[in-house]
Amino acid sequence: MDHTKILHLLKAKTPLSGVRVCGWVKTCRNSKALSFLEINDGSCLQSLQVVAPAQLDNFEQVQKLLSGSAVAVSGDLVASPAKGQQWELAARRVDIVSRTDETYPLQKKRHSDEFLRTIAHLRPRTNKYSALFRLRSEAGFAIHSYLRDQGFFHVHTPILTGSDCEGAGELFSVTSRSPLFDRDVFLTVSGQLAAEMFALCLGRVYTFGPVFRAEHSNTARHAAEFWMVEPEIAFCNLEQNMDFAQAFVKQTVTHMVENCGPDMDLFSRFVDPELPATLDNILASEFERISYKTAIDLLVRSGTAFSFTPEYGNDLQTEHERYLTETVFKKPVFVYDYPRAIKPFYMRVNDDGRTVAAMDLLVPRIGELIGGSQREERLDVLEQQMDNSGLSKDHYGWYLDSRRYGSVAHSGFGMGFERFLMLVSGVSNIRDVIPFPRTPGTIEF
Amino acid sequence: MDHTKILHLLKAKTPLSGVRVCGWVKTCRNSKALSFLEINDGSCLQSLQVVAPAQLDNFEQVQKLLSGSAVAVSGDLVASPAKGQQWELAARRVDIVSRTDETYPLQKKRHSDEFLRTIAHLRPRTNKYSALFRLRSEAGFAIHSYLRDQGFFHVHTPILTGSDCEGAGELFSVTSRSPLFDRDVFLTVSGQLAAEMFALCLGRVYTFGPVFRAEHSNTARHAAEFWMVEPEIAFCNLEQNMDFAQAFVKQTVTHMVENCGPDMDLFSRFVDPELPATLDNILASEFERISYKTAIDLLVRSGTAFSFTPEYGNDLQTEHERYLTETVFKKPVFVYDYPRAIKPFYMRVNDDGRTVAAMDLLVPRIGELIGGSQREERLDVLEQQMDNSGLSKDHYGWYLDSRRYGSVAHSGFGMGFERFLMLVSGVSNIRDVIPFPRTPGTIEF
Repeated sequence: MDHTKILHLLKAKTPLSGVRVCGWVKTCRNSKALSFLEINDGSCLQSLQVVAPAQLDNFEQVQKLLSGSAVAVSGDLVASPAKGQQWELAARRVDIVSRTDETYPLQKKRHSDEFLRTIAHLRPRTNKYSALFRLRSEAGFAIHSYLRDQGFFHVHTPILTGSDCEGAGELFSVTSRSPLFDRDVFLTVSGQLAAEMFALCLGRVYTFGPVFRAEHSNTARHAAEFWMVEPEIAFCNLEQNMDFAQAFVKQTVTHMVENCGPDMDLFSRFVDPELPATLDNILASEFERISYKTAIDLLVRSGTAFSFTPEYGNDLQTEHERYLTETVFKKPVFVYDYPRAIKPFYMRVNDDGRTVAAMDLLVPRIGELIGGSQREERLDVLEQQMDNSGLSKDHYGWYLDSRRYGSVAHSGFGMGFERFLMLVSGVSNIRDVIPFPRTPGTIEF
Repeated sequence: MDHTKILHLLKAKTPLSGVRVCGWVKTCRNSKALSFLEINDGSCLQSLQVVAPAQLDNFEQVQKLLSGSAVAVSGDLVASPAKGQQWELAARRVDIVSRTDETYPLQKKRHSDEFLRTIAHLRPRTNKYSALFRLRSEAGFAIHSYLRDQGFFHVHTPILTGSDCEGAGELFSVTSRSPLFDRDVFLTVSGQLAAEMFALCLGRVYTFGPVFRAEHSNTARHAAEFWMVEPEIAFCNLEQNMDFAQAFVKQTVTHMVENCGPDMDLFSRFVDPELPATLDNILASEFERISYKTAIDLLVRSGTAFSFTPEYGNDLQTEHERYLTETVFKKPVFVYDYPRAIKPFYMRVNDDGRTVAAMDLLVPRIGELIGGSQREERLDVLEQQMDNSGLSKDHYGWYLDSRRYGSVAHSGFGMGFERFLMLVSGVSNIRDVIPFPRTPGTIEF
């Protein structure tokens, strides 16, 4: 490339002559003799100060640059006399690539998140959202990188599916003018069942892709399309599954803290002052482990006035989850051994016959971050579970094959990628951590 | 975990006592005094030889183990007297986790790819497909890793979309019982338009996700669902785009060669003996660059009897692409500057007014591996192009905004991930590089 990224220039050890920077104007301040342009190229949060002297042929034009205009600047990287920055670029030439005018929607410095959602195609030009989407990118890499280090293989499970893994939740239907397939096709809600087929030969696998829910939940936590990472581990019981989930969360959070300092600082300063403490707590804690029954007992005995009364046999609500992790334990909590009746068919039935080897990880500020289980590996029990759930054993013959041949104890979990991003950024609305969110309503972009 | 992966045991420097291995039986050979079990756990292609002595309490049971049975073996890793392997496991205990019987479909050693497609849930248990899906996993990591090193950010562009980026090709429609959105929704065919919005502030971005074509192409090269990686680069013209595409292909192939030796060797030995030469050629070559016009001239003048007569103004067919890269240049070839009429609206119009700054990369054995272009950054020309293509400027107002505000020269390309996998494995049918392929017909899994 014929230009250098600002990320690299800001790390320079010595002055550099003859460099070229390409980016967009954040601000332009003028005096008679000089124009000061803050240029950002997206490579990092920081902008580079360009000092353009009156000697430039197009100095008058430079002085009129508005925020959002694109420029290519050639000059020398020199020590900056200004406070708070080591380097600035003494311009020898400023090529104006394109100008914005006063109709540019991001003229003013601060905009509400609500407004920025209406211009999702422009909001990554703001400091907050450029930082957020750099975080999102690095978080994905943190996940791939850690799982690979741990011997996992990434399996691209299909998006188009004839199955409904969860046996619950609304599905999107997929059609084409001329049908391609011999049965009804839906968008996947989870890659788990397919991933299990691969765990039962590759040993440790994961999926990491988009999943879909056709639900009208217009909340700050739900989207119709979101990304989920789903590790699946052979020769692994529920306890080992929780061990791994704890290590997974701690290591990916550590990766973010170590690799995304400046971008994460922005969120600590402007979005959630408690963010560093929240993450420190996760890294320092041995996660609590309590049974579902204990969880219900704690909630009932708490005397807290919940909107939904906690009761054995019902799912935990977000308010319950947050009470347990934030108020009772003040750290992440695994809740395990849920009632069989409220969990999907594939979860392993415990010896009591009434509960299954499920586990959810609750974390402060988010509630459920991870949901997982040991899978039912016994063919006869699994078939009984499918009968109880009204599922067709013919339809799932391939899935049952994995229990007919070489079946082993295995476990896995799913982590909503956006929930993880909300955790590490302090952002509280899922719409603000997805490039072009798909929530009920418009689908403009 | 309470067991060690075979991948690690095979790298041991010294004998190890008290190790535990969990996996599946590949073969079982018996003598009176000993049973020899080949155990594979999916962590690598190689199996570990377990030597089970007659002293074991369950020796009789061990001797009856059939291929595909699951076992957990405790014992000592000792030097193997057998040829071709450094280590073997002297078993002190063999726990039989589950048995297969004679109905197990993978009893025999060799099966046709066609048969294995009918048991896609079991085929990763074979050497060939376990190797393939480890390659697939590592190829994804190679792409993420290289792009991150080059300063790219991964953007998760939406799968549900109201746009048809290519302006061509059949779309899948998405519906739900109760409509969620205010317009017709489709599955994406490309994340490019959305990615452009992010390149025009983050500088260098890429998408890497599933894309969809509702086409009845029942060929060895087409699937209804496949994965595509799409880098998009600001301040980048067509030539720089080709420079980058060349580096990208060479570096990701290099990563595979350096990290996947044993798995790739399997494909060189059993699938395509020419594979090493094909990849060496890619790594050693400066890719050729010819204009579309030159390409047509070469094809016409070749005198070769193609099924489709090459003619200026028509798309190149696979037979033309392979002739150029395999017969004429014997190395990868970029073909650039295609006729405006056969390319989508977003490609930059060249000064001649008749061609656009498109480029395709053709490689031996595959044909088109990459398709890309410089994008039209001039608002007036882009609007004209949209009018010519019959696209609604209202519908694409957000896309046009990127040319109204801070527009810069930018370029990108898409690489079909499965094509890349076919290139580095020598596998010739796309159905065989996708875990659960979606081609016209059944959608069993």
